[in-house]
This record gives sequence, C-alpha cells and structure tokens, in this order.
Amino acid sequence: MSAHDTLRAVQWSEDRLLLLDQRRLPAVAEYVEITRVREAARAITDMVVRGAPAIGITAAYGVVLAARSRHAESAGDWKQKIQPDVELLAASRPTAVNLFWALQRMQHVIDKLDSDPFLPLLTEARRIHQEDIAANHRMGELGASLLDGKSVLTHCNAGSLATGGYGTALGVVRSRVAAKCVRKVYADETRPWMQGSRLTAWELLQDGIPVTLVCEGASASLLRSGEVGWVIVGADRVAANGDVANKIGTYSLAVNAQQHGVRFMVVAPTSTIDMHTPCGDAIRIEERSEQEILTLAGQPLAADGAQAWNPVFDVTPAELVAALVTEKGVIHYPNRQKLEALMRN
Amino acid sequence: MSAHDTLRAVQWSEDRLLLLDQRRLPAVAEYVEITRVREAARAITDMVVRGAPAIGITAAYGVVLAARSRHAESAGDWKQKIQPDVELLAASRPTAVNLFWALQRMQHVIDKLDSDPFLPLLTEARRIHQEDIAANHRMGELGASLLDGKSVLTHCNAGSLATGGYGTALGVVRSRVAAKCVRKVYADETRPWMQGSRLTAWELLQDGIPVTLVCEGASASLLRSGEVGWVIVGADRVAANGDVANKIGTYSLAVNAQQHGVRFMVVAPTSTIDMHTPCGDAIRIEERSEQEILTLAGQPLAADGAQAWNPVFDVTPAELVAALVTEKGVIHYPNRQKLEALMRN
Repeated sequence: MSAHDTLRAVQWSEDRLLLLDQRRLPAVAEYVEITRVREAARAITDMVVRGAPAIGITAAYGVVLAARSRHAESAGDWKQKIQPDVELLAASRPTAVNLFWALQRMQHVIDKLDSDPFLPLLTEARRIHQEDIAANHRMGELGASLLDGKSVLTHCNAGSLATGGYGTALGVVRSRVAAKCVRKVYADETRPWMQGSRLTAWELLQDGIPVTLVCEGASASLLRSGEVGWVIVGADRVAANGDVANKIGTYSLAVNAQQHGVRFMVVAPTSTIDMHTPCGDAIRIEERSEQEILTLAGQPLAADGAQAWNPVFDVTPAELVAALVTEKGVIHYPNRQKLEALMRN
Repeated sequence: MSAHDTLRAVQWSEDRLLLLDQRRLPAVAEYVEITRVREAARAITDMVVRGAPAIGITAAYGVVLAARSRHAESAGDWKQKIQPDVELLAASRPTAVNLFWALQRMQHVIDKLDSDPFLPLLTEARRIHQEDIAANHRMGELGASLLDGKSVLTHCNAGSLATGGYGTALGVVRSRVAAKCVRKVYADETRPWMQGSRLTAWELLQDGIPVTLVCEGASASLLRSGEVGWVIVGADRVAANGDVANKIGTYSLAVNAQQHGVRFMVVAPTSTIDMHTPCGDAIRIEERSEQEILTLAGQPLAADGAQAWNPVFDVTPAELVAALVTEKGVIHYPNRQKLEALMRN
C-alpha cells in the first residue's frame, strides 16, 4: 500500500472477518468482528459494509464462516446444510451483482471439495479479495490515462471503502494523484446516505487527497462552469448492453454531463458486468425505507404524514457512458457486442 | 382563505411584524416578533423568512419600522436618516430581485411624503402584501389550467411560506387540488437547507395536501418513469431574456425534464422579473457558508478538512422553460421580446 492507499474496510484476521462500520464514519472508525454467517449477511443488509465489490468479498468470507460452522456440526452433509447460508447471503441485498458472482465462485469450490472446507474456501475468498485490489490498481491506471487536466466529479463512494481496497472511481483518482495531477476532486454528498460527505471525503482525506463536496443540486452548475472534465463513478451492476446501475443520482449526473460536454466514466471490474441481464430495465432496483429520507439521525426531518420514495440505485443508459473502465481494458460507449468481446478475453 | 390555504408566514399585527421562523419548522411553528429594521434585515439574512416574494414583503414592512423610528427621532430629516436603513435591507440578501423592487416601491412613497410616514408606508407595505397574494391566486389558476392529469414535481419551497400567501408553484398545486385533481405531488427534499422536507411537506400537509418527498438524486429516475407531467418551480429572479435564477438544483431538474419530455413551469409574479438584468449570467449568485454542507444540526457530517462549494441558486436558461406563469399571463419559452410585451401590459 502506498501513501495514497492506506485503507482496507474488509479484512480477514486469523479466524474472523473484520468490517469497518461505515454507518459510523466519519465520527468513529471502528471495526466490527464477524464470526458467523448470519452476522455477515446482516452487516451487508444493514450497510455496515457497502459498495458492490466489498459486498461480494464480504459474502465470500461469509461462506468461509458458514462452512466452518456447518462442517463442525456435521462433516458428512455440510454441503447440503450450507445451502440456506449461501441463500441468506444472496438475499442480503438485491442490486449489486458482485454478491452473486462471488457466491458462485465459492460454490464452485464447495462443489469440488471432499475434505475440511475451511482452508480451501478461505484461500478462494482471499483470492477474490486480492484479485479485486489488483483489478482496481489496473483500472486506476487505465482510467487516469484518459483524464484531461481538468477537475473531476465523483458520486457516492466507489473507493477503498466500497471495494477490496484502492477503489474503482477513487482508484482512478488515486492514480491521478500519484501522477501528481493537482486539479480538484469534487464529490457529490450523495443523499440520503451521505456516502460522499461521510465516506468519500473521509477516505480521501485519510490518504492526503483534498476534496470539495457539493450537493447533488449543485452538480449541474459545476458541470456548466467548465471546470470539470470527467464525471467518474463506480457501478453496482453493468447489464449486457452496457446500461449501468449505480447509486441513485448517477443518472442525473450522466444526463447533465452530456448536456455540458463533460465526459462520463464508469469504473467497474468485470465481476460487476452481468451478461445474464440484457439491459438496465431488467435490473431490480432496491428501494429502502422512507425513514432514510423522512428522518435524520433519528429525529424527524419532514412533517408527520409526509411520504417518501427512496430508490437506492438508478440506471444510466449505455449511450451516456463515454468510457467503461474494467481491469481487462477500456470500452468507449459500451454495447452488447463490445462487452461480449471483452468478457471473452 | 380556503381549506387549502391557511398559512401566512409574514403578518403585520397592530404595531409589529410577525415572521414564522422557518429555520425551526417543522419541529416548532413559532412567530418571531420584529419591531426594528435591524431585526427585519437580520431575519432575511438568517433565513427566518425566505422566498423571493416573502423577502420583498418583509423588507417593505422593515421600511415601515425604520420610518416610525427615524421619524420619532427627528421629524425634520427622517428621510435622510432612513437611507442607511433602506440600504441595510437591500444588503440583506443579494439574489432575489423582489427585495429591491419592494424597496423601490416604498422609496417612491417616501419621496412624496411630507407628514408622519407611518400610516402611508404601512398602507403601501400592506398593498404590496395583498397584491402578492392576489397575484398568486391568479397564477395558481393560470398554471393549473396548463396541467395534464399526471403527477407534478416541485423543488425547494415556493409556497405560502415563500410568499405573501398561497404560493407561486404551490399556488398552482393548491389550485389543482381545489379542482379535485388527485394525482401525486412530489417534492425534492432540496439540500442543503431541506426546504422541501422541512417546509413544502409541512405546508402542504397543514393544508391537507399529501406529498411524497424524493432526494434530488432520484428526480431523474422519477422523470424517466413517465409519472410526472410537469416540473413546477418558483423563481428568485427572471432576467430580461427569460433566464431564471432559482434555488440550487432547479437547473438540473430543467435539464432532466427536457431529456424526458417533461414540461418545465416557472411561476413568478412580475415583481420577480428584472428587465435591468439582461441574462442569467449577469445575476449575482449568492454563496453561503460551507458549514451548511459540512455539518448537520451542529454536528460534523464530513471529515475534518473537507471543503465544500455551496452556491444557493442556479440559472436555468430560458429555452428550457416551457411556461413562465405570471399574474399578467403565461409566456411559453420566454425571450426578451415576449417579456418586454408582458411588462408593458
């Protein structure tokens, strides 16, 4: 890890999983200890950990915990007994495809196992984790090479906190900083969960990278000003036609980027690309509680009786994506043909 | 006042001005008593009262308070002594043009006065107030007549709380409700000051009108869904070419409305139209403290060291405005020629 890359939100330590509790940042930076699969699933649902790649890695370690427990219970039929655990992890959040991708990789290892599953599964989970970090470094270089000298704007948190480490969108930022580019990094505060204010700002400042926050409402003015060359975001799922599901607010940014001649970059490992989902309309968009909008820190924000609509993700059509950066290479204006070729590589 | 029109945020009562403290809504609905011009100016700066028409009306009553005091001090040269007071009011906030328009109307009365100014100035301030309410009712009818059967989306608070009463954008909503249309009213929560969550939701629910809040980031998805027929907003200043300065986030909505074939309505009395400002680029956009973004209810929201850019308004170009609704009539896709004709009426 370099000076601009010091954070690991998901860590395996001896016999347990440690998750940096992202609900409490930036006030408190505390790791939660996870020793059981139920705790891992709940940590995903409750957003102790969030970000598509980090969710996938957490689920992989969750399978390790489940296997240890089920094998201790019954060495004979642990492979049957673990299935509800895998399903529990799969049901923890619906939109990020990395979750299902990681569970599939773990299932492949399970299917081939005869002996004690703990070490083989831990090895596979660690491999998923390390591959993600390596992919982020590669994407960071590829993405940074596309940038002009202007400032960048990012949304939500697609950083170390959202991945195995280094980050996707923020990996590009880190690589640019490492290359001594000093233009500004703007970050949307990202309502309602404030990932921009709470997580992206904290993460970048931890690594010595200055950041300027804007409200989502101010992004259009910022893009109109000409100061920003690229909008850079991560993804929760990329459909086979190149449509991108990402944090709510991403689509509005993409429309405004197009309106102002600003380029729009999506940075996502191929584990986020789902060739079984034909297009964005087929992606299930999670809706979370109205209370995330109607209250703030447990206090009522809106008058009693107000309702809210709280979709957590939106879909940006492929034609607005100037560059999709993956660890296997960059695709400009993705479509099915280009993605199929990439995934065959 | 009808069942759907029960609020008056600015009230003159006997010898003082009462302002509903909008910083404390919706938790506490309390009127602040204002007896001196300095208090009136501070109430505008500190956003006890906000909304372009309400600011103008408050400033007019502020002149009444100033005149009473200056005339008591010195009946001979109160007209000179009141000038710093008028300038203080003019400096209280920079963007809303109604402030300067109302002060000009008061100054015209001052210029013609010989005797005790209190009653003549109070009469003029009350006239400004009543004319604003009447204009809102007229605009409400005109705007509602343009609506289709779909839902509407509004931004910030352009309601009773932002005006003399009834509201501009929310006046259109009220008129539609009075006409028994039952489709949904969506409101952006409107960061960073949360006028949508705190004020618009409270105001509409007080008057028995259901409301559904969305984060600004979700508006593009909502507009894409086809459920919304019109975006309806107020304005802080309309330039001579039809460009519209309004609460930050308005411009992004206008761009997204255009992208999705949703029509965009600006509802503003002619007191908001500034023929001396040639275009939107000439409007001074107020920037407020970074702390509005970096903290929440006095608690740090972002990590120590984060910066923020906090422009309070943005400019929507005239070509995105499908309808500008004024009390003198409706202009579709405003331009200088159409506005000049309207203002001559």
